[in-house]
Amino acid sequence: MSDSSDTVTAALCIIGNEILSGRVQDANLAFLGQGLNEVGVQLREVRVVPDIEDEIVAAVNALRARYTYVFTTGGIGPTHDDITPESVAKAFGRRAVHHPVAYARLEEWYRNNDREFTEARKRMTLMPEGAELVDNAVSIAPGFRVENVFVMAGVPQIMRAMFEAAKPLLRGGKTVRSRTIGTRVVEGVLAGPLGEIQKRFPHSDIGSYPYYGAPGGNGVNLVVRSTDPADLDAAGDAIVAMIRDLGGDVLDDVRG
Amino acid sequence: MSDSSDTVTAALCIIGNEILSGRVQDANLAFLGQGLNEVGVQLREVRVVPDIEDEIVAAVNALRARYTYVFTTGGIGPTHDDITPESVAKAFGRRAVHHPVAYARLEEWYRNNDREFTEARKRMTLMPEGAELVDNAVSIAPGFRVENVFVMAGVPQIMRAMFEAAKPLLRGGKTVRSRTIGTRVVEGVLAGPLGEIQKRFPHSDIGSYPYYGAPGGNGVNLVVRSTDPADLDAAGDAIVAMIRDLGGDVLDDVRG
Repeated sequence: MSDSSDTVTAALCIIGNEILSGRVQDANLAFLGQGLNEVGVQLREVRVVPDIEDEIVAAVNALRARYTYVFTTGGIGPTHDDITPESVAKAFGRRAVHHPVAYARLEEWYRNNDREFTEARKRMTLMPEGAELVDNAVSIAPGFRVENVFVMAGVPQIMRAMFEAAKPLLRGGKTVRSRTIGTRVVEGVLAGPLGEIQKRFPHSDIGSYPYYGAPGGNGVNLVVRSTDPADLDAAGDAIVAMIRDLGGDVLDDVRG
Repeated sequence: MSDSSDTVTAALCIIGNEILSGRVQDANLAFLGQGLNEVGVQLREVRVVPDIEDEIVAAVNALRARYTYVFTTGGIGPTHDDITPESVAKAFGRRAVHHPVAYARLEEWYRNNDREFTEARKRMTLMPEGAELVDNAVSIAPGFRVENVFVMAGVPQIMRAMFEAAKPLLRGGKTVRSRTIGTRVVEGVLAGPLGEIQKRFPHSDIGSYPYYGAPGGNGVNLVVRSTDPADLDAAGDAIVAMIRDLGGDVLDDVRG
């Protein structure tokens, strides 16, 4: 699938020791990949880095230079291990300051709820100077945007609410559509003709994903993805014809 | 947690458009993070890259220069989108050749099973020249190792079997132990004293992970991780004392 001026790309930087240690299974990558595609943005790279300032700075700077948008998840909050805002500020060469609107909002909220606006809670309003708030319907503490970098929470419920708020700020390109065709013809048999179909349809990406141990037996999902609906249709039809030529059945044919 | 000569590190490079599109949820990262730690290797970085040769080459070369070990998942198989072996060969400046042992084994297996040893199936024996096989109990097609890079399947059942075969080849350092202490004291209240405890125990990493919407209500897991058992114990005890000082209850205290 070749890039064009309509191609809008993104990267995700997942920040957190708990993901690397395997204690927590990331739940944001797949959500973001799908959600971005719905607005015409293609997720092209993901990095998972530990809670170490230099690592976060290096990853954010590498990714923001290369992709239209960068999203970070994790490391915003009141505790000592929440160092994402200061790290992103450093990546941009900006000071980390208390965002005046966020500060006033949290100050009022804690006062109204009879809780102390502790130094730790004030930390949740620290952002790179000039950052724009990314509000959300779930948490009083906002995410933020600096240039093409969106900083979001790691907790999935909050991350999803922040992404909803970020969506209207994104300039989308063409949406990638998909067609998923299932069969029991094995990869070793279909690989040759499938490769020929890929060559005939360079504007579509064709992926082959075998699965094992399913209740109905083993099988393969052949997934065509393209921003060009006509190319997608034609490539999918060629795959259906290929499966029948090989004496197989088409188990599913699902467009997404 | 400071590094020492006993610190053995690893990175994971997940190769696959289906992970970036969100069609498939990765199931290998958390497994590998935990599995590596059991043999004294710390997973420090993960990158997810698309099925594009230049991207794979760049990621593998960046990671293998920096970490003791690199593991890749995905992109080994018979279809046109399985380009990991050739890409890893290119990263090492080696030719991709049919591994003679793997070739002979697959040739025999397909003959014994009355199936054709197709060109596509022969592709599964393509590896960088000089690669060492990483066998597995699940699939006839092996993974392989080149220097400090282990190339594994993306299908979780096969990846896990290959990792079991790779384990004896790893030189482990100190194992990171953990202690997870649960409480309902909120982060905004505990963050100050918790930060002080982190300063007192620089040989332990303390993470704070809030959760929301659980049946029993919201809460926070405080996770201490260290290669030093005495430091881990003392830091954990300090956290338990802190929770009680703040008038809270310790919900869990689990060592791992």
